[in-house]
Amino acid sequence: MRNIALIVSYDGTDYSGFQSQPCGNTIQDKLEHAIFMLSRERVKLTGSGRTDAGVHARCQIVNFTTSSSIPIERWAIALNTRLPQDIVVQCALNVSDEFHARRHAISKTYRYTINCNRIPDLFRRRYEFHHPTPLDFAEMRASLEHLLGEHDFSSFTSPQSTKPSHVRTILDVRLEIETDPFSPANHLNESGKSWDERYYPGKQRGVIHLYVTGTGFLYNMVRIIAGTLIHIGEGKKTAAQMAPILAARDRAKAGPTAVPHGLSLWEVRYEELDPVRQEQAVYRF
Amino acid sequence: MRNIALIVSYDGTDYSGFQSQPCGNTIQDKLEHAIFMLSRERVKLTGSGRTDAGVHARCQIVNFTTSSSIPIERWAIALNTRLPQDIVVQCALNVSDEFHARRHAISKTYRYTINCNRIPDLFRRRYEFHHPTPLDFAEMRASLEHLLGEHDFSSFTSPQSTKPSHVRTILDVRLEIETDPFSPANHLNESGKSWDERYYPGKQRGVIHLYVTGTGFLYNMVRIIAGTLIHIGEGKKTAAQMAPILAARDRAKAGPTAVPHGLSLWEVRYEELDPVRQEQAVYRF
Repeated sequence: MRNIALIVSYDGTDYSGFQSQPCGNTIQDKLEHAIFMLSRERVKLTGSGRTDAGVHARCQIVNFTTSSSIPIERWAIALNTRLPQDIVVQCALNVSDEFHARRHAISKTYRYTINCNRIPDLFRRRYEFHHPTPLDFAEMRASLEHLLGEHDFSSFTSPQSTKPSHVRTILDVRLEIETDPFSPANHLNESGKSWDERYYPGKQRGVIHLYVTGTGFLYNMVRIIAGTLIHIGEGKKTAAQMAPILAARDRAKAGPTAVPHGLSLWEVRYEELDPVRQEQAVYRF
Repeated sequence: MRNIALIVSYDGTDYSGFQSQPCGNTIQDKLEHAIFMLSRERVKLTGSGRTDAGVHARCQIVNFTTSSSIPIERWAIALNTRLPQDIVVQCALNVSDEFHARRHAISKTYRYTINCNRIPDLFRRRYEFHHPTPLDFAEMRASLEHLLGEHDFSSFTSPQSTKPSHVRTILDVRLEIETDPFSPANHLNESGKSWDERYYPGKQRGVIHLYVTGTGFLYNMVRIIAGTLIHIGEGKKTAAQMAPILAARDRAKAGPTAVPHGLSLWEVRYEELDPVRQEQAVYRF
């Protein structure tokens, strides 16, 4: 038996999430079916983690064992011809017998994208949340340091969570901002920027990418962080409030759960898998 | 009465083209309906030109006259709330009474995108044609000079064309290439690039954007140019053959009509409209 890892990208818009469910229509179901069509084996895939319904992946890692002798370089193309267009296998890799996509993951990075230009971006609308009013980028950025390190993230998960511990470690969290000085969104008013300056003083427009890297995540954790960040950007909360929100261990203190379509599983790191290999799966969203 | 111009972007995937048709489901129908919902006026839009079913627009210009007194800066957002998500009005502009989006267009630019990496780009798949084998970029580029200037483009339009003249002027034609040295598409084989080098000597992988600017275009003209260019890139034709293909004035001599979804109306220039205004509608496909 061989152990094979796949680097998989998907547009989660039309799926009920990564993990198999009784109702079907999941990424895992589609991948397992494609593997069956190719190898006639009923395999059980292990993913690096679940993604919710509507959430995308630039780089999801899965593994499975097979007795098939198909050469490793054939798997990606052979599976892609058996997969719907919105799921793509970037690469197949032979891995050690011990490799386990979930247990061996050292860290995972998610990206949440908020477009606060006035006009949504037609060609990226499936991959970003459109927030039509400007946000205070500096205040949002200032709030992030409170999330770094080991904390009980009970404020940032569903109250129905059944996990024995809500302690998780955030290794890195940062905002990347794309501003477009020519965006019609920012100049709609014939008199320049006065509209925004008058109604939204101290706030900016642009596309915000929030990257969160951690050793593990709770259910809805990144989406609740994103929702809280939006409240901070709107001025409903301050950056300094991030610390007491965390300390409260109370879901009601944090902001709303941001919509799923702004979220993508960006990267998963392993000791065994060469990070350069993963960089190969870089896509321009 | 006022004359208003709109800068419109659309994802043409799910539409029967720009221009109104008895069957409905066109971009023009959706825009006219949104204008009716907003102003209660039944207007007739003029577009800078038609786009076929499945073809996109980064920057389509339309105009219409209205007796509505809605301030110009409100139109874009008010129309967007009345439009499906895959049609976006970037900007509305007051234009002179004489302005006519089709007749006053000085030039139009189309972009055709061919992805010849081994693996398709999941997140741009609606906007590019995936050609899974590599192409000879230098030969493709060398063929373009023959298209420049005024020619009879009968070889590059449908034989059913009823236009009185097939003479058109190409002002500019160029290839822009995005290559990704880390693309898994180019390194699938464990032994490096030998697979491509062995089976496709002298050919390259990457994403090719063909930009064609002209004063006017015939039906299917850019798609037939793209199809001919693909034949040249595959080695089925040489760059030098572009000249006799043009001279033949025979559709059968040119390559196939490339699929519509790789094509986008990129830009339309007018004396009256400030090009910077149009640059405001730049989107990252």
